[in-house]
Amino acid sequence: MFFIIGLGLGDCKDITIKGLEIVKKCERVYLEAYTSILTCGVDVLEEFYGRKLIVADRDLVEQGAEDILEGSKDKDVALLVVGDPFGATTHTDLVLRAKEKGIKVQAVHNASILNAVGCCGLQLYGFGEIVSIPYWTNSWQPESFFGKICNNYRNKLHTLCLLDIKVKEPTLESLTKKKKEYMPPRFMSVSEASQQLLETIKKLKENDETPVVAEDSLCIGLARVGSDNQEIVACSLKEMAEFDLGGPLHSLIIVGPILHPLETEYLEQFKI
Amino acid sequence: MFFIIGLGLGDCKDITIKGLEIVKKCERVYLEAYTSILTCGVDVLEEFYGRKLIVADRDLVEQGAEDILEGSKDKDVALLVVGDPFGATTHTDLVLRAKEKGIKVQAVHNASILNAVGCCGLQLYGFGEIVSIPYWTNSWQPESFFGKICNNYRNKLHTLCLLDIKVKEPTLESLTKKKKEYMPPRFMSVSEASQQLLETIKKLKENDETPVVAEDSLCIGLARVGSDNQEIVACSLKEMAEFDLGGPLHSLIIVGPILHPLETEYLEQFKI
Repeated sequence: MFFIIGLGLGDCKDITIKGLEIVKKCERVYLEAYTSILTCGVDVLEEFYGRKLIVADRDLVEQGAEDILEGSKDKDVALLVVGDPFGATTHTDLVLRAKEKGIKVQAVHNASILNAVGCCGLQLYGFGEIVSIPYWTNSWQPESFFGKICNNYRNKLHTLCLLDIKVKEPTLESLTKKKKEYMPPRFMSVSEASQQLLETIKKLKENDETPVVAEDSLCIGLARVGSDNQEIVACSLKEMAEFDLGGPLHSLIIVGPILHPLETEYLEQFKI
Repeated sequence: MFFIIGLGLGDCKDITIKGLEIVKKCERVYLEAYTSILTCGVDVLEEFYGRKLIVADRDLVEQGAEDILEGSKDKDVALLVVGDPFGATTHTDLVLRAKEKGIKVQAVHNASILNAVGCCGLQLYGFGEIVSIPYWTNSWQPESFFGKICNNYRNKLHTLCLLDIKVKEPTLESLTKKKKEYMPPRFMSVSEASQQLLETIKKLKENDETPVVAEDSLCIGLARVGSDNQEIVACSLKEMAEFDLGGPLHSLIIVGPILHPLETEYLEQFKI
């Protein structure tokens, strides 16, 4: 059987009882380590589980389905992923490849940022489409996420922005070489995301447009949700661009135009 | 300290290690038992935790904040909720009441239907606003959810429909009496939800409107997500209205107009 097990968002103790029992009995256990991160290291996980883990990097998860699934028709093999099993396309793909091979699959669910974000007090049914904000480069500065945020806002909905993660990204120069070289890991902060949003707003204004989401729009920055040192702050986009929320992972919410009194009351504690 | 602990979606083993450790050390532990249900009973939870639970019904959670929070400034008290702690407004309210009293609060996250729904293979960033479909009565047949579904569809997004739960609902007759009487619990099935949707479509067509979501639209029915006997089925809305997915809880997805090839491939296994 092939198991895909969510680890939740915080540390080693956020795995479920069901998940832990499976981890203990499996022949091989892979840890997916590039779509997201926990606040604890691999060594802490290994000690807590009392077993070795095989760190599965991007290349292995995306191209090594054969290796990961090998033998799992007769033996138990697990892949551990931060958050919930179905947060990333590559995981869905892996489940499909397993089923093709006649391997039984079981998923063990856990918290992901998509529901844990409720900790800021905004009701989850008030959110629209989720957007991803990618790191801009000199030659690639997409702005499609901004259109979606504005669309949500016009529909009176909040937007959860998932911020870019660059882990084990090959350097541009090494792509043509035999030996890949990787860039140092980068995790977009709420401040960096807000700066890109402000930049987009500035460009639109220069073109005489008036975006519904602007410098003064209320937003919420969340850092390390689900961990002991979680932090939440609510302020204008302009203020957020200057705010340091500490270590990764960060998420940003652009608040919709209408708040329930309970939401307003809840947000008060996070105002700077 | 006041803890609000998510139990996830399946059975007693879906609690996290962190959650279980807290349950074991608390002075009092309440189990919220009306916004959602697990597939196991209270007795199974009590045996697994090795301790007594206080079942918190609707009246207690909505009006009994004082009772629940009593003494939690100095002692540890926990409220267990199915899914994630911030799935319902009443939980957010309880956290606020605790903070007002100077009581420290810690949330322990877990899976909720909002992320676990990814098990059907649709990517979570392709969903729009969540809608709730309430049971219609003879005199109250709201259709606002249908407008939201169509709006999502026009924005090329899927819609997750949360289906009504009636647990410990006082009977209309008993509202004026001293002693409340309750209706038997009801959990809306995907078939019932689909019938209400078809009814709405029929009315619109009688008014010469052409809704973007119609009898032949693709939808996905999910039952008991996260449990051993989870079932998923993909078919037209018309077919779904006739389909029996077994015991609760059910959720319904109205699929958007565009699918990624991976999503199409994944859905194949659920076609009837």
